[in-house]
Amino acid sequence: MNEAAVTLDGWYCLHDFRSMDWTAWKQLSSDEREQATNEFLTFLEKWEVTAGHKQGSHALYSIVGQKADFMLMLLRPTMEELNDIENAFNKTTFAEYTIPTYSYVSVVELSNYMAGKDSDPDNDPRIQARLKPELTEAPYVCFYPMNKKREGNDNWYMVPMDERRDMMRSHGLIGRSYAGKVKQIITGSVGFDDWEWGVTLFSDDVLQFKKLVYEMRFDEVSARYGEFGSFYVGTHLPKERLPQFLYI
Amino acid sequence: MNEAAVTLDGWYCLHDFRSMDWTAWKQLSSDEREQATNEFLTFLEKWEVTAGHKQGSHALYSIVGQKADFMLMLLRPTMEELNDIENAFNKTTFAEYTIPTYSYVSVVELSNYMAGKDSDPDNDPRIQARLKPELTEAPYVCFYPMNKKREGNDNWYMVPMDERRDMMRSHGLIGRSYAGKVKQIITGSVGFDDWEWGVTLFSDDVLQFKKLVYEMRFDEVSARYGEFGSFYVGTHLPKERLPQFLYI
Amino acid sequence: MNEAAVTLDGWYCLHDFRSMDWTAWKQLSSDEREQATNEFLTFLEKWEVTAGHKQGSHALYSIVGQKADFMLMLLRPTMEELNDIENAFNKTTFAEYTIPTYSYVSVVELSNYMAGKDSDPDNDPRIQARLKPELTEAPYVCFYPMNKKREGNDNWYMVPMDERRDMMRSHGLIGRSYAGKVKQIITGSVGFDDWEWGVTLFSDDVLQFKKLVYEMRFDEVSARYGEFGSFYVGTHLPKERLPQFLYI
Amino acid sequence: MNEAAVTLDGWYCLHDFRSMDWTAWKQLSSDEREQATNEFLTFLEKWEVTAGHKQGSHALYSIVGQKADFMLMLLRPTMEELNDIENAFNKTTFAEYTIPTYSYVSVVELSNYMAGKDSDPDNDPRIQARLKPELTEAPYVCFYPMNKKREGNDNWYMVPMDERRDMMRSHGLIGRSYAGKVKQIITGSVGFDDWEWGVTLFSDDVLQFKKLVYEMRFDEVSARYGEFGSFYVGTHLPKERLPQFLYI
Amino acid sequence: MNEAAVTLDGWYCLHDFRSMDWTAWKQLSSDEREQATNEFLTFLEKWEVTAGHKQGSHALYSIVGQKADFMLMLLRPTMEELNDIENAFNKTTFAEYTIPTYSYVSVVELSNYMAGKDSDPDNDPRIQARLKPELTEAPYVCFYPMNKKREGNDNWYMVPMDERRDMMRSHGLIGRSYAGKVKQIITGSVGFDDWEWGVTLFSDDVLQFKKLVYEMRFDEVSARYGEFGSFYVGTHLPKERLPQFLYI
Repeated sequence: MNEAAVTLDGWYCLHDFRSMDWTAWKQLSSDEREQATNEFLTFLEKWEVTAGHKQGSHALYSIVGQKADFMLMLLRPTMEELNDIENAFNKTTFAEYTIPTYSYVSVVELSNYMAGKDSDPDNDPRIQARLKPELTEAPYVCFYPMNKKREGNDNWYMVPMDERRDMMRSHGLIGRSYAGKVKQIITGSVGFDDWEWGVTLFSDDVLQFKKLVYEMRFDEVSARYGEFGSFYVGTHLPKERLPQFLYI
Repeated sequence: MNEAAVTLDGWYCLHDFRSMDWTAWKQLSSDEREQATNEFLTFLEKWEVTAGHKQGSHALYSIVGQKADFMLMLLRPTMEELNDIENAFNKTTFAEYTIPTYSYVSVVELSNYMAGKDSDPDNDPRIQARLKPELTEAPYVCFYPMNKKREGNDNWYMVPMDERRDMMRSHGLIGRSYAGKVKQIITGSVGFDDWEWGVTLFSDDVLQFKKLVYEMRFDEVSARYGEFGSFYVGTHLPKERLPQFLYI
Repeated sequence: MNEAAVTLDGWYCLHDFRSMDWTAWKQLSSDEREQATNEFLTFLEKWEVTAGHKQGSHALYSIVGQKADFMLMLLRPTMEELNDIENAFNKTTFAEYTIPTYSYVSVVELSNYMAGKDSDPDNDPRIQARLKPELTEAPYVCFYPMNKKREGNDNWYMVPMDERRDMMRSHGLIGRSYAGKVKQIITGSVGFDDWEWGVTLFSDDVLQFKKLVYEMRFDEVSARYGEFGSFYVGTHLPKERLPQFLYI
Repeated sequence: MNEAAVTLDGWYCLHDFRSMDWTAWKQLSSDEREQATNEFLTFLEKWEVTAGHKQGSHALYSIVGQKADFMLMLLRPTMEELNDIENAFNKTTFAEYTIPTYSYVSVVELSNYMAGKDSDPDNDPRIQARLKPELTEAPYVCFYPMNKKREGNDNWYMVPMDERRDMMRSHGLIGRSYAGKVKQIITGSVGFDDWEWGVTLFSDDVLQFKKLVYEMRFDEVSARYGEFGSFYVGTHLPKERLPQFLYI
Repeated sequence: MNEAAVTLDGWYCLHDFRSMDWTAWKQLSSDEREQATNEFLTFLEKWEVTAGHKQGSHALYSIVGQKADFMLMLLRPTMEELNDIENAFNKTTFAEYTIPTYSYVSVVELSNYMAGKDSDPDNDPRIQARLKPELTEAPYVCFYPMNKKREGNDNWYMVPMDERRDMMRSHGLIGRSYAGKVKQIITGSVGFDDWEWGVTLFSDDVLQFKKLVYEMRFDEVSARYGEFGSFYVGTHLPKERLPQFLYI
């Protein structure tokens, strides 16, 4: 197989963005709202059990601006599990009061530019931890999908492997300079969704998203070859705060 | 006729993507839901009879993410049959609870780059089988439409036939290296829909879609000349599982 | 006047694409549905009288896929007539059960590349017949709007008249090779709608649309200079079959 | 100030496109419809008084095709007046039965390429008349927004002033050759709306729009530098015909 | 860190554009409308207290044209406060009668091209005032988002720092020539929203927006490198005029 196309792939990933239909939600009685909220909480608790067994991970964030009210990020070992969760969630009473606004289907990916050459990835615990990441409760999240450009002279897929590797290395150095400040999960979506990659960033300081993405934009990989979709930014919505988030 | 424009064309093809209107669906009584589900099952059974007579084929997949809840893929010898099925389906009670999200009209195609030169395609059973493909029950599906680019120096339709044939041959070799892992149906839609081709992939392993499409992206045909629409990925939804899929 | 900009213009043309609101349609009693269907039939019969007097023409097609359920194509000597018909149709009970999905406003056009130089177009019956075409009951229709590109070195409007004429001549030869197989009506829409031309093709064999459009795509006029909008394909819906098409 | 950026600016302009919600409109009693129609007529009569005092102008056209049912074009000395009229109109009962489909905010503009050098525009009655135009009752209207392109080598804003002036002069000559056939109002919208200019054409002969816009497209200013939005074409809807237009 | 990517960042910013659902609003009794209006007024008064404590700022403008009825601009020290305000506002009865049409998430930014080199920004009151701007009651507002282009030879992010600084200096000179006429707030949104910057202009004279933006368009920074989103223009809607704005 073409060396360029080798990646390590981990858990499957669904980003699910929704807005609340507040008008309909307010027409419920407070008892009905509490029941629907508990329905969502029950899902979250079930997913915590899964996470406890290292069979997946998830995170819930409140999104700033009109693009969505919240984002649910779900990681699972198989695509079926994502599909089943999504279908089960859509059948809840709670889901009747949400409006789907965007979703993204992908799989956690380590690119061959990054991957260690000498180790056996299946038995390297550091690599396994990156392929099956445990989502933390970072206060802020940033999500955006992206492509590598194929336009005229700026065609990433026509650049020789060596040059691509050099550019990715320099790109990675910027990322590494944010270590401890921004945690980054790259998910690949070629064949799964409309962009080639999804980028999910987590941080204690929302401004670090801007600094990181802006600094990278001057790097040749982004400057010449990066194509970006919509950016979503949000604040952590822990299970405990969900009732208040939904309270009328 | 221009040699470049010769293709072999088989069965007509309709990809029909829909989401469920779960809120309305839940307002039905369980009897009404059962009746509507049976209506859909009756269609599926009728289509199985057609498939048994080698007069068409069909497949039903549950789609991951918010783009659609399911995709129905229909193959028939004539465009009228597709149109009739679509209109009949739209009149069912079940269809009232679905929301059309995307569709694609095309015809199974073998390009002249691929076609055997010496055989008589009308009597070559291998070619006939590819033009009138029997859809299998592969666990995963991937669909995307695509164009060949016509931008500045990257204009596929201005490239001499010989060079195009060489590029397609190399492209085909990648496809062939996935034999046994990914089954691929190419449908042509020039004059029928908004992109030039539809690509439908089937596999036992969803990750193979990503590997195949990503590897091909480095191939000149895709790297310089490929333009891609939305990607849909899904899991097989056999008739037997439909009642559970729709169960509230 | 700039020679390049001379065209012969005939009847004004409205393509009107609509989907049925089947759910609402089914909520009517069968008497109400019959009445609404008859309302539409009455329009069609009135338009037949107009066509009989050579004061216009029209055609009704069922569209394949989710883009629309049917397309109404109307030709009239004046823009007012199109506007009046459209407004009258929108006030019918039948129209309440339709959802407008696309429309196109244009005028039948013979380009100056094609027009005979020596004849007087006003008195040339062959030209008059092409400017005021009588729509036939061909089993299949294909419609798409298009532009001539103006991008970098591929700028049709900067190409000298002579070169454009040569390219159009070669383009016309392909069209002519489909004589008897595909009937083509070109309508100009510069100043009337969002693309520069509309192309409406009629055929007894739906596959001829694909063959014609694909073959032309290799021709320099399309390869370098063609920009295409959405493609709609449909099957003929004669007045006699309308009640069945709408029957629940 | 940069000479290139000098313009003469007149009345502010709002183009307001709407479709009728015919289904809801028909659910009113004929008395209610008459009252709502009268509400609209009262606005039109008030605006006629304003026009009589040379404090503005307006025009109402029925639009062909599905993009809108009618276009209201309003000219006023201040932006506040447009905003007030729009808000007052939105509060009417009549407005409840309309669906906004497009609007355009701009100001009547004479470019510095055109303006006489020697006269004092504030006291030149010919210039004042063009900056505060009285809309006539021409039978046909055409509206479209446009930009000057900034792509690669086709970047209008990088072209030296002299060359731009020469190109605009040649462009103006085409426009002038349509004097008596097409009346043209250019409104500037840089900083006000999504395109740089709006073009509103009036004529007794709808075909002149096509001829003018098509002829101009071969002119370098349009061929290389013109970028065009949606085109709207319509027929005059005088106040007297409004009741009939709205009659069920 | 790459010098190019250094910015000074101040208060977080949410632009929230909404249209009124006038039809639903009119179905309320005048008492209910008054209550809902008071709800909004209570928010505005609370925000005034915050502004009085220099803990944020806000502004309300009526938008011209169909893009929105009003724009709320909110500045706060943290992203959480914006998110909390937005969620609280969405739960009001008033919000039930609004339709979200656009929003923009960003942070007040001084670019490193502009920033004084020698001062300590944290203690420079002039810089602090620009990073935490007090929104004034200017009669007019203009908002638009923008990118720096990355296309072929026009790739801002590949231009050496010195050249970028020179271009930005010349750009800034135009801005400065509008001092006293237009107040400008630049907010950065890399990593937060779909464009790289938001530009909010305030003026006593709406025509100055057009003059400023048009003059800048000839400047190389905009001409070659500027990419612009939708433009919104509006008139000030002081709290005192809100009841009249909402009065039926």
